[in-house]
Amino acid sequence: MSVAYLNGRFLPLAEAQVSVLDRGFLFADGIYEVAAVIDGKLIDSASHLARLERSTGAIGIVLPLSLAEIEAAQKQLVARNGLTEGLVYLQVTRGADATRDFLPPPDIRPTLVMFTQARPFLDVPAVHRGIAVATMPDLRWARRDIKSVGLLAQAMAKRAAADAGAQEAWMVEDGHVTEGASSTAFIVTEDGIVTRPYSQAVLAGCTGAALGALAEESGIAVIRRPFTVEEALAAREAFITSASTLCQSVVRIDGQPIGDGTPGPVATRLRALYIDFARRTAV
Amino acid sequence: MSVAYLNGRFLPLAEAQVSVLDRGFLFADGIYEVAAVIDGKLIDSASHLARLERSTGAIGIVLPLSLAEIEAAQKQLVARNGLTEGLVYLQVTRGADATRDFLPPPDIRPTLVMFTQARPFLDVPAVHRGIAVATMPDLRWARRDIKSVGLLAQAMAKRAAADAGAQEAWMVEDGHVTEGASSTAFIVTEDGIVTRPYSQAVLAGCTGAALGALAEESGIAVIRRPFTVEEALAAREAFITSASTLCQSVVRIDGQPIGDGTPGPVATRLRALYIDFARRTAV
Repeated sequence: MSVAYLNGRFLPLAEAQVSVLDRGFLFADGIYEVAAVIDGKLIDSASHLARLERSTGAIGIVLPLSLAEIEAAQKQLVARNGLTEGLVYLQVTRGADATRDFLPPPDIRPTLVMFTQARPFLDVPAVHRGIAVATMPDLRWARRDIKSVGLLAQAMAKRAAADAGAQEAWMVEDGHVTEGASSTAFIVTEDGIVTRPYSQAVLAGCTGAALGALAEESGIAVIRRPFTVEEALAAREAFITSASTLCQSVVRIDGQPIGDGTPGPVATRLRALYIDFARRTAV
Repeated sequence: MSVAYLNGRFLPLAEAQVSVLDRGFLFADGIYEVAAVIDGKLIDSASHLARLERSTGAIGIVLPLSLAEIEAAQKQLVARNGLTEGLVYLQVTRGADATRDFLPPPDIRPTLVMFTQARPFLDVPAVHRGIAVATMPDLRWARRDIKSVGLLAQAMAKRAAADAGAQEAWMVEDGHVTEGASSTAFIVTEDGIVTRPYSQAVLAGCTGAALGALAEESGIAVIRRPFTVEEALAAREAFITSASTLCQSVVRIDGQPIGDGTPGPVATRLRALYIDFARRTAV
């Protein structure tokens, strides 16, 4: 039985419940983070916690614990679940009101929930074969830099991508790829690796940021500019990054092979560099 | 103690809880409706239930009850709470999974929750004085015709409007008013009443649709076209419609008075027509 954390208590995940008046449930008034766990340790934790603080700050939710206390609770959760490889999911919402009103009362207290998911990602078929992505119109709101739980557009895109035989959706706006539904999108050109610059149009990916720094350290240029679907189709390689996939090669976009249709050398090398970085810096 | 309905059971609202794995909580993967209650009866119920079915259909949630069964449960909830004037809130989500994944399992069962809010709206100061609105950039997603619980952008706009001393936010996109954060926006010109046409850019307001029909019956033209903030500022009158306000005059926009700065005759007349219609057709 998986153990969850809810507002200071550890309890069976199956018993972790929130009020129907919780604003996370009624208004998607909440923020989440997903961090990877390898060898029982948290990966790139400081980066995820810093983004959590940025997102909650952007919508005026005050975290009920310090970042150090949150990390300590995450570690305890990982230990209690005996998790060696998988994810820690964290969600903080503005909390439950006594009624439903768009304006919360000033004394509302946030809800903090965390649970783990045992999910191998180091040695899975998607790494060896690569994944297919399908492009979808980007229907999301204008503040994608805020990692809110308002994920219906992403869930719809993932559903449509799965129906098209793909494992991820790449969101397209004005002809340019913004990002994956739950990942950062990269292509490899002769000049280096290309990914969308940070703005309110995309989430600042933690894994992508670390991987970009590793690329630059190893002499691969990181070019932050929007790219089109046509450029992606003509690219040498394409790949995604996220906490739950780390780095995976994209070998087909909308059914068309990228490069020779197998995981390419740049993404494969960057994945190895990232896993090495992850293990070195795990906490 | 207020009574709620949750998945077939009536229970105290304070005890109504959902799993933290409910997709309404994790992904805003849910739909809601708010219907007014006057004299202990549901207002414009068929229209709200038809929209519920459209919204859930658009995202592939199968309602766990027929619309007639939902209405019967709403009536029972109104009776159990002794509600004479207020709102019935209804939310259906895709349900709780055993884990968190963007793709739900095929056998997931929806969550249906309803509760009431005693809230007078027939004889309140806002009716006599009118309300102030503040314009805000429309940051929402592209499928506003789906009444999803992904309401963070609306909550942020309402917060900013309240901070500016206004009771509602009017969302502006490309210089044109789309709608209120939780209402339909109208202006009154010499040609009739003007409101945005139906599209994916706005929610099809139930109260606004009924009020538009009443306006036409009484010889007031309804012109469905986008209007600008400048047009609104120069309008004879402005007003909003929603289940929770019915019809309220907007007497200030961004601090500038509309008309003579008091509720105008057209909105006042339409409000009276709507209340008469509501009482005649209540169930």
